[in-house]
Amino acid sequence: MSNSNNRRNFLKLTGLAGLGVATGGFVSCSSTSGIIAPPNMGTSRFNMSGYAAPKIETVKIGFIGLGMRGPGAVKRMSYIDGVEIKALCDLRPKQAENAKKLLDGTKHNPKVYSGSEDAWKQMIDTEDLDLIYIATPWDLHVPMAVYGMNAGRHVAVEVPAAKTIDECWELVETSERTKMHCMMLENCCYDFFELLTLNMARQGYFGDIVHGEGAYIHDLVDLNFDKNGYEDMWRLKENIGRDGNLYATHGLGPICQIMNVNRGDQMDYLTSLSSADFSMHKRATKLAGEDPFFNEFKNANFRGNMNTTIIKTKNGRSMMMQHDVSSPRPYSRIHMVSGTEGFAQKYPEPAKISKGHSWLNEQDYKAVEEKYTPEIVKKVGDLAKRVGGHGGMDFIMDWRLIDCLRNGLPLDQDVYDAALWSAVTPLSEQSVANRSNSIDVPDFTRGHWKTNAPVDISLTGGGTTNVLLTD
Amino acid sequence: MSNSNNRRNFLKLTGLAGLGVATGGFVSCSSTSGIIAPPNMGTSRFNMSGYAAPKIETVKIGFIGLGMRGPGAVKRMSYIDGVEIKALCDLRPKQAENAKKLLDGTKHNPKVYSGSEDAWKQMIDTEDLDLIYIATPWDLHVPMAVYGMNAGRHVAVEVPAAKTIDECWELVETSERTKMHCMMLENCCYDFFELLTLNMARQGYFGDIVHGEGAYIHDLVDLNFDKNGYEDMWRLKENIGRDGNLYATHGLGPICQIMNVNRGDQMDYLTSLSSADFSMHKRATKLAGEDPFFNEFKNANFRGNMNTTIIKTKNGRSMMMQHDVSSPRPYSRIHMVSGTEGFAQKYPEPAKISKGHSWLNEQDYKAVEEKYTPEIVKKVGDLAKRVGGHGGMDFIMDWRLIDCLRNGLPLDQDVYDAALWSAVTPLSEQSVANRSNSIDVPDFTRGHWKTNAPVDISLTGGGTTNVLLTD
Repeated sequence: MSNSNNRRNFLKLTGLAGLGVATGGFVSCSSTSGIIAPPNMGTSRFNMSGYAAPKIETVKIGFIGLGMRGPGAVKRMSYIDGVEIKALCDLRPKQAENAKKLLDGTKHNPKVYSGSEDAWKQMIDTEDLDLIYIATPWDLHVPMAVYGMNAGRHVAVEVPAAKTIDECWELVETSERTKMHCMMLENCCYDFFELLTLNMARQGYFGDIVHGEGAYIHDLVDLNFDKNGYEDMWRLKENIGRDGNLYATHGLGPICQIMNVNRGDQMDYLTSLSSADFSMHKRATKLAGEDPFFNEFKNANFRGNMNTTIIKTKNGRSMMMQHDVSSPRPYSRIHMVSGTEGFAQKYPEPAKISKGHSWLNEQDYKAVEEKYTPEIVKKVGDLAKRVGGHGGMDFIMDWRLIDCLRNGLPLDQDVYDAALWSAVTPLSEQSVANRSNSIDVPDFTRGHWKTNAPVDISLTGGGTTNVLLTD
Repeated sequence: MSNSNNRRNFLKLTGLAGLGVATGGFVSCSSTSGIIAPPNMGTSRFNMSGYAAPKIETVKIGFIGLGMRGPGAVKRMSYIDGVEIKALCDLRPKQAENAKKLLDGTKHNPKVYSGSEDAWKQMIDTEDLDLIYIATPWDLHVPMAVYGMNAGRHVAVEVPAAKTIDECWELVETSERTKMHCMMLENCCYDFFELLTLNMARQGYFGDIVHGEGAYIHDLVDLNFDKNGYEDMWRLKENIGRDGNLYATHGLGPICQIMNVNRGDQMDYLTSLSSADFSMHKRATKLAGEDPFFNEFKNANFRGNMNTTIIKTKNGRSMMMQHDVSSPRPYSRIHMVSGTEGFAQKYPEPAKISKGHSWLNEQDYKAVEEKYTPEIVKKVGDLAKRVGGHGGMDFIMDWRLIDCLRNGLPLDQDVYDAALWSAVTPLSEQSVANRSNSIDVPDFTRGHWKTNAPVDISLTGGGTTNVLLTD
């Protein structure tokens, strides 16, 4: 069982890398990347990419996690036809009840599960659900998704879907074995400029895609250190003992879709480098001086402020991804697409498009928008802006998920996307811990990337689900 | 002489890497970077950083290279007091004579050297010069600079100062031995927003500097393939057989000054990744089909379109540098400064500054500009815009060089800057050729970086040189 042994050893080393311990002895003497990547876990059991599950007329949903993201999702789902919100679960009774109140005046009357750490399991065991919608702290994503799939439910899980390479494989193996969808809720793929550039890429506007950039640059210092923010300061703790791109999917997802990663192209290797931490430790020390609540963070080993990761694909493209949640600068996901015939960049806003040495003027930009706005935006874009949620993208995402489940269509984001986009985090951590030597990226599709179909943005066979908004 | 042997072996391998051959067997089995960096060449012979050479009342200049950059420099120098343009040299008589014509109506009457590959040596041997100003193809930079210093002249050399690590050390050793200045003509350090942000950094506006970004993103495909562009297509040929950040200094220089690299901080290691080439080969093939002149480029091994390099410093900062000279996108050097208290970004223009989650409005931006504009810009900024040269920065650079030489002041950019900023290129090539494993960066100051003084931007002891412009 040498594969298992390698995997176990790798897990231990992964664990070490995850704790930010310098893995001095970890470098392999090979002529490829500096770090041995784990084996590809045998052969694909069943290809969930492009898999069309049986239609579900009315999607019965159970929500787990009603803290920061959950309640908004409950509310958004109540605007979508063909949905029954059957159950709500949160460890904390108050959050669960508050979420239920959001449904006053709607037809939904979910049962509430709460008050124990096993409540979510009871919900899954007891309720007849089609979809489990998971918006809990990151550590719980995989246990809940796996449990849900094993119980014969489709799962939708917040980002990141998993935190370690092994967890990524667990999602893939479980989805393939159970034939249950596992979709990561990467909402940024459904933002307006992202969908526009995806369609532009499909229509050849950019020529050959050469390079793409994304990021999660969002100053969260105040929020992360807020005693009344995240439950048990879980999000601050995620910044301790791990150093890499800790939250890669928002910037990565849209670029991967544009490059057809997992569906015509595949990640090959990456390298990652972090600055030191110049601010988190100082903030923790200052707060501990004012309030002993923060004592446990005084000597914490915070990740560096800025992480930069570069990725090479099999087809020769490159991606640059960044993560910075502790610098006083405006929000940015960058979202840059560079091709042989055109270029686009979203941040700093306003978004810009170019076919050469200067940006399109306002008129030409509008013409491009007019020409390349994809079907899904034409169908629900304005409605989404009215329902809200990060300007509408959250709603487009939820609507599309339900519409696909109801029409028996493959999901835009499958388990291989969930695994791969999440895997960039632990891979980046390992590279950072290993003086930025490169690391190979596992192929979670186990070869199917060469023939998997690109994400369909034409609403083929779908677009039938109504939005319950009165004019 | 094991150091010499290592160096010779390394040179051979460097040569291989420079030819773009995959150096599969080159990875070292160490717990540091994936590639062995060359040794630090013994101890520093004499510290040229902060060295004040004897004053020169009238700086006698000889120019070599009057193609793309040279004539502009000749013209600019004619506006600076305390300068005597004594000699002009170009392989091609026509270029040399045309450059001399630019001085009609001025007091300058240089002798012209031309018509042979040894003409520049004759110029250096024959003329009594204080400064050799070198603007030739890259391959000639080091031979000419070394010859000039050995002849007892200060040298100013266009970017990049050198192409290989060994050449970088040659510049350093020669400058230290001869006590002749070797300044690389990195004009971007003198652009207005760059000087502004340098002064802002000095005054603590950004807090601790955490991360910086620079680039040379400039679509040069048409120019590089132009038969009537660069002599013997030398610049196109620089894009063949080498893959990395081939032209790093424009983006790197200003960020290095802001971070006091070589003068309080130092580069530690870097990693570099290139996309494939999606356009150069196609262009060469297309042109060869129309004109047999281009046949030699049909099967050339062009560098990838986009190179991304990340650098870590000893003090924990990170830098992201890019190079793309073949994509249809607007010009960018990025020039981004990210600190614990503030942020600035030049490209895409207009330049932006931030102290938090939003950009300064126009009024607040102007207030920052007002408060932090450094002495040198106050002194010659407007005059520089009138003389011209990339909007003025070229003139500020030339004026500052002459003013320092006349007043016996250390130069802003010394040989260690020339060596280090140029060295990023061959280092990036090696990382790219080695699957983006990281590589240690040599310390050309050999320890003096810890105590070298930062670049002085207050014109201390200088600012006495007049600009010969009538109102």
